[in-house]
Amino acid sequence: MTTSNPSKQEFLAVLKSVLGESGSSPIALHEPNIGQRENELVSKCLSSGWVSSVGEYISEFETGLAKFTNSKHAIAIVNGTAALHLALHAVGVKPGDEVLVPTLSFVATANSVSHCGAIPHFVDSDPETLGLDPLALREHLSANASLRDGELHNTTTGRRISAVVPMHTFGHPMQIAALIDVAKEYNLTVVEDAAESIGSFVGKVHTGTFGKCGTLSFNGNKTFTTGGGGAILTNDDELAKRIRHLATTAKVPHDYEYIHDAVAFNYRMPNINAALGCAQLSRLDDFLSAKRILAKKYAEGFSSARSMQFVTEPHGTTSNYWLNTIRLNKPDLALRDELLSAARADGYMCRPAWNLLHTLPMHESSPRAKLPVAQNLWQSLINIPSSARHYLGQK
Amino acid sequence: MTTSNPSKQEFLAVLKSVLGESGSSPIALHEPNIGQRENELVSKCLSSGWVSSVGEYISEFETGLAKFTNSKHAIAIVNGTAALHLALHAVGVKPGDEVLVPTLSFVATANSVSHCGAIPHFVDSDPETLGLDPLALREHLSANASLRDGELHNTTTGRRISAVVPMHTFGHPMQIAALIDVAKEYNLTVVEDAAESIGSFVGKVHTGTFGKCGTLSFNGNKTFTTGGGGAILTNDDELAKRIRHLATTAKVPHDYEYIHDAVAFNYRMPNINAALGCAQLSRLDDFLSAKRILAKKYAEGFSSARSMQFVTEPHGTTSNYWLNTIRLNKPDLALRDELLSAARADGYMCRPAWNLLHTLPMHESSPRAKLPVAQNLWQSLINIPSSARHYLGQK
Repeated sequence: MTTSNPSKQEFLAVLKSVLGESGSSPIALHEPNIGQRENELVSKCLSSGWVSSVGEYISEFETGLAKFTNSKHAIAIVNGTAALHLALHAVGVKPGDEVLVPTLSFVATANSVSHCGAIPHFVDSDPETLGLDPLALREHLSANASLRDGELHNTTTGRRISAVVPMHTFGHPMQIAALIDVAKEYNLTVVEDAAESIGSFVGKVHTGTFGKCGTLSFNGNKTFTTGGGGAILTNDDELAKRIRHLATTAKVPHDYEYIHDAVAFNYRMPNINAALGCAQLSRLDDFLSAKRILAKKYAEGFSSARSMQFVTEPHGTTSNYWLNTIRLNKPDLALRDELLSAARADGYMCRPAWNLLHTLPMHESSPRAKLPVAQNLWQSLINIPSSARHYLGQK
Repeated sequence: MTTSNPSKQEFLAVLKSVLGESGSSPIALHEPNIGQRENELVSKCLSSGWVSSVGEYISEFETGLAKFTNSKHAIAIVNGTAALHLALHAVGVKPGDEVLVPTLSFVATANSVSHCGAIPHFVDSDPETLGLDPLALREHLSANASLRDGELHNTTTGRRISAVVPMHTFGHPMQIAALIDVAKEYNLTVVEDAAESIGSFVGKVHTGTFGKCGTLSFNGNKTFTTGGGGAILTNDDELAKRIRHLATTAKVPHDYEYIHDAVAFNYRMPNINAALGCAQLSRLDDFLSAKRILAKKYAEGFSSARSMQFVTEPHGTTSNYWLNTIRLNKPDLALRDELLSAARADGYMCRPAWNLLHTLPMHESSPRAKLPVAQNLWQSLINIPSSARHYLGQK
């Protein structure tokens, strides 16, 4: 494998120069940063006894999220998968529907569709943003779907296509305005999967607030964490009310009786997790600054690399750089895996993009568009260590 | 309403004598008890940075639960509803199946069935245990279901009946041995809903360990809490392995690749919640002792009541007395509501049994047996304050 040595050398050299030596324990891909403020709020929550599905931190966290994202409503949910499932269910995705999702995404995007009893319909990616490609989507729909009485149908399967789930890959905003145009043209409901993009903006507008609703994740590997957690953002009052109702077993308000008026979920974030969230949210700006410094160092480091480039935020957007990413100049699975193995051996916890969703065994027979760009990206992308701690507190 | 006055007087008198005056803030129906140990473990968890879906407290909590319940496996889950959903899914409940559940239960029992795409089929209760009545079930099945090629079918709807979900109401063990006999006769899989019965035993065997698997809940109103949380118990190695896999997005173990081999869930309990659980579990015996003292005081207090009786643990069982309960001598909704209102006005947070599940709008057309006992119980039962704190540390 002597031919790949220069690539390996330049890759490892930049990691070392930006992150330093890995030392005795490996440098994580992305680790949480928990400090004194987190201890204080969680301890106060424990002392209050209100640790479960009701409590002041849930409201405070929701208010803080709504303010940060400039969304009219934010509903705290037990995790990102549950948030996306409930969002799709609440906007009216029904069993037997198809839902358009990018094949280049974490498996939760497709699972949430399946949890509605619907079928994921996989579409291709934009080589620049790494997100769903709106133009390729339009082309695919114009050839393979038709509107009947205002509803879109897959002309091959006959099934209704009810929604589209754009995802902001590794935190980089996809072309949401163009996607909204295509969705209008085909009467598709847009539910944004912003699990990876808290702190990412298109212009000054936060990701997850463009569609009918959007979802966030605060899993331990995300920009900030609540242990497990997620949220749904929406500007629609009625939808927000329905989502809150469905997240709390659809219990009808009553002094003491237990009446529920719909099949519903136990999906609210517990107060103890929200307390952690409040502390983390108060530090989000610091995390984002540190992550931008790290991304800048990587961009500089990889600027002279000959076989790979650093993926930067799309024009007109601000990315949270959740997971910093390099792309090989030519798709090359063997080189990708060689770089991954070498970096991990040196203590830098890198990882590839997810195996494409349409290739997973449970989605073998799911409908799909042509997927050439996603195939190339899968063979080209490597995520590199991205924790805020490396440059936290620096300017 | 002068005729009800003696009942009201005797009811309020016992509450006051057992619980004391309610004082400035009301006495809760059931509140968590969080102490120093909880603060210590949660704080250690935060310091470690491992707050999410991987961490030592998850393993420790699972080991502790398995030991306490004498179950071969315990898998910590994000909440009780998710635990029951995953348990039903993992034992093979399919969309379009019917699942037998008691109509006298919390709505989560039926929701979990619906989340599988299955239909709850409601059955009657035993007036002694308040749980599903095995003999009434046998009678119902013998008249309304038939075995074909080893599978049970509802003769009216034609649907397969694949499982039965006995629930241990308010912590009191139902007649699980008799239920298991009926289930064998009709080839039904038994999934025990032990959400309310951590610390409840039949003989020396813990509830939730009789069926193919069983589920627990650690919501804030339960005997002990993890904020939100639940668990699945099973003695079946293969099933335990499958459940763990399905609870963690069915990710196939690999150094760095993201391969998933089934539609699956994000259902694992976060480590921060498990840390709280470890502390609470270490105090469970104290909680159970305190709750038994409280129940004994209630039993004594209500022994001379003329219009109601205290519900005691079924013969041969040990109940955790999760929610202490009185039963009116005659079903009487007006009297029930009068007692509830009077107690709440005096600061004792009582509540009725849940509205029967078959009466909820989303289950209007669900199949059901004759339900005379559950109807009577619903008009007769009142839950009364049951927190451990009232007699904690006393002998």
